[in-house]
Amino acid sequence: MQHPNIWPPFTQVKNAPDPIFITHGKGALLFDKAGRSYVDAISSWWTNIHGHAHPYIAEKIYEQANTLEHVIFAGFSHAQAERLAERLVRDHLPHNIQKIFFSDNGSTAVEVGIKMAIQYWQNIGQKRHKIIAFEHAYHGDTFGSMSVSERGPFTGAFHDMLFDVQFVQAPFPGKEKEAIAAFAACADGDTAAFLFEPCILGAGGMLMYAAEALDEMIRIARDKKILCIADEVMTGFYRSGHFFATDACTHKPDIYCLSKGLTGGTMAMGITACASYIYDAFYSDDKFKALFHGHSFTANPLACAAANASLDILEQAETKQNIRRIAERHTAFAHLLKEQSLYENVRQCGTVLAFDVVTGSGTDYFNTIRNTLYAFFMERGILLRPLGNTLYIMPPYCIRDEELDAVYASILALPAYLAERSLNPS
Amino acid sequence: MQHPNIWPPFTQVKNAPDPIFITHGKGALLFDKAGRSYVDAISSWWTNIHGHAHPYIAEKIYEQANTLEHVIFAGFSHAQAERLAERLVRDHLPHNIQKIFFSDNGSTAVEVGIKMAIQYWQNIGQKRHKIIAFEHAYHGDTFGSMSVSERGPFTGAFHDMLFDVQFVQAPFPGKEKEAIAAFAACADGDTAAFLFEPCILGAGGMLMYAAEALDEMIRIARDKKILCIADEVMTGFYRSGHFFATDACTHKPDIYCLSKGLTGGTMAMGITACASYIYDAFYSDDKFKALFHGHSFTANPLACAAANASLDILEQAETKQNIRRIAERHTAFAHLLKEQSLYENVRQCGTVLAFDVVTGSGTDYFNTIRNTLYAFFMERGILLRPLGNTLYIMPPYCIRDEELDAVYASILALPAYLAERSLNPS
Repeated sequence: MQHPNIWPPFTQVKNAPDPIFITHGKGALLFDKAGRSYVDAISSWWTNIHGHAHPYIAEKIYEQANTLEHVIFAGFSHAQAERLAERLVRDHLPHNIQKIFFSDNGSTAVEVGIKMAIQYWQNIGQKRHKIIAFEHAYHGDTFGSMSVSERGPFTGAFHDMLFDVQFVQAPFPGKEKEAIAAFAACADGDTAAFLFEPCILGAGGMLMYAAEALDEMIRIARDKKILCIADEVMTGFYRSGHFFATDACTHKPDIYCLSKGLTGGTMAMGITACASYIYDAFYSDDKFKALFHGHSFTANPLACAAANASLDILEQAETKQNIRRIAERHTAFAHLLKEQSLYENVRQCGTVLAFDVVTGSGTDYFNTIRNTLYAFFMERGILLRPLGNTLYIMPPYCIRDEELDAVYASILALPAYLAERSLNPS
Repeated sequence: MQHPNIWPPFTQVKNAPDPIFITHGKGALLFDKAGRSYVDAISSWWTNIHGHAHPYIAEKIYEQANTLEHVIFAGFSHAQAERLAERLVRDHLPHNIQKIFFSDNGSTAVEVGIKMAIQYWQNIGQKRHKIIAFEHAYHGDTFGSMSVSERGPFTGAFHDMLFDVQFVQAPFPGKEKEAIAAFAACADGDTAAFLFEPCILGAGGMLMYAAEALDEMIRIARDKKILCIADEVMTGFYRSGHFFATDACTHKPDIYCLSKGLTGGTMAMGITACASYIYDAFYSDDKFKALFHGHSFTANPLACAAANASLDILEQAETKQNIRRIAERHTAFAHLLKEQSLYENVRQCGTVLAFDVVTGSGTDYFNTIRNTLYAFFMERGILLRPLGNTLYIMPPYCIRDEELDAVYASILALPAYLAERSLNPS
């Protein structure tokens, strides 16, 4: 039963299965009240990278909570925020990125990126209006982040409250030239920013495209001085195999939006990282040129402590080995999947493996096969959350081989299950 | 020096004083690297209610971090979220409010409130478009929450990206009848929602108005079936003396937006609480009637654990006694302030005491007296963060009498300081 006082996110409660009540987690596993375990093969909405209830992260949060749980970040600073900003800039972000602006989640990180880009042009006295984003993009649920996302059922009730954005096709395999040409035609002198999910359009259906094509688009944009905003909320922190998905590009974005894996998936925080030349356009004797944005919990010390602890783990050789291990095992499993007639469009980017269940009715978030698939895996102790008829695996990096084997085995068992029950959707 | 990798919130860095590096906190005090202490008389942006590094809250966060730091909240649930939702509904919110929707901060809590209200009308098949908000309102920094905030320097670069809102005057003392009449004329059958900060317009300058006048506006709105959204992000959790500021009204809002004090000020979380009849309009066999909103860290167990721990403390008799003590001492101090020619518009709502420094040039967030005032108090170990020429005290409830005395004494010392230096701005 849904608790009578809770309205859950992204859920039509009326026909949803009862929520599973989770009591605790450990590694890649979640445990419910009845003692059943579930392999969290989607990292709890793509956030968890080191496993659940990680003792080292818990310890670091506790230390911080006993020292300084929070302080206003306007006029004040603290060690956890400075250390995190320094580490991200020095060790992980490309050389052009120098400044870290904190917020509370992926949506706000994107909102800040948009605001930086729009106000940048105003501050330097050249108002540019157009924002370019990809068809099938998903950047969040607030009005700004909805505006830059594909118009569809998620945004349906609010279309006349969203600002205009120019949507262009992403450079999907086989359509690169066409997409790049369309982008080049659209990217003009009135374009303020080009915002994109690098290499994987997540909620849009785990649609993947090559870094090389994105690289060419960034090159074109930067030639026209268009600010490039990489939404690395999902792809960051080695999800794609690289620390950032855009690390595979030679041309670098001007702005990065981070969240999810930033705190190791333990709690909410967002970061918008940007180039010095953007920051410089706000640094002025004119106080109105400041960026008037700031949430109460900006650079919350607990969240920064979690993020620093997560980076400690992420920088260990063992973690990098795990990331390679998952990517390699995904590649091997992808070969098996390609032999299955139930699956198509098998695609991989680092630790993310995605494929579509052949339905004959096309790929769609609201495809009804979704509920059958979800239940099938949950009954087998595997948390996979299909996007319509698209299945994907995005595990915590600490997932053990036998847990990953269980995920793979359940996927291979699906065709026979559907066939036996005449549920085969194709 | 501002750390070279940090872009701080709401700050024009060029002419800002160097940030103070805080190492730890205890009770109402913050301590810097040099060993100096500061009374946090603004509760770190109005968030902290029980004092810094509270050991009980730290303990509860640690327990939770070692048990279940996070789990996806779509299809899953956990004890901390259910307990928190139940307690807020059963013990604190008015009887008409039954459902709790979680998000990550005050801006997102407001965005969700707006989305609930707009989609409510669409779902029941009566599209209503207009949103009414107050002049001088501040509801956050994302595009939706900026749209319902006063247009001004904070939103200047983004005006053509914000949706239209009808602004009406708040019922300030002496202007109640006029404001209520203007509101009644504006509130029509096309109005979807009326959104307001109850009793105190915070960032707009701690402008206060009586609950009775708001009560009448809510009555008018509800007569026309307009959904009333109370932004209790600042006023909630006894800030106003009542648990919610709207507790002083007999007519109740349909939607509440909460954050800041929700977690005791320890970490980011937002809640949008609403009436069952709103939820019911989304509960349907039509999956497209669902609210497609959900941040990755929705109902984060750590934040919920902090919120439950904060409620434990808040429900203690000692805390309620402290809240009364602060309110009574503020009232007594207000009498002293009214005798000072430097101060005017002395006003109080519960634990919030606000007043303006007479400048001869009117009240304004960007008034240059602001920097003089801020530095004056900081030099005396008091963190007060003026809104232009408006000063306000909003302390953690645990503040000790001698700490509050120090705050009061510094305010009384200001006139002589300004006069001696011929800085008296009037």
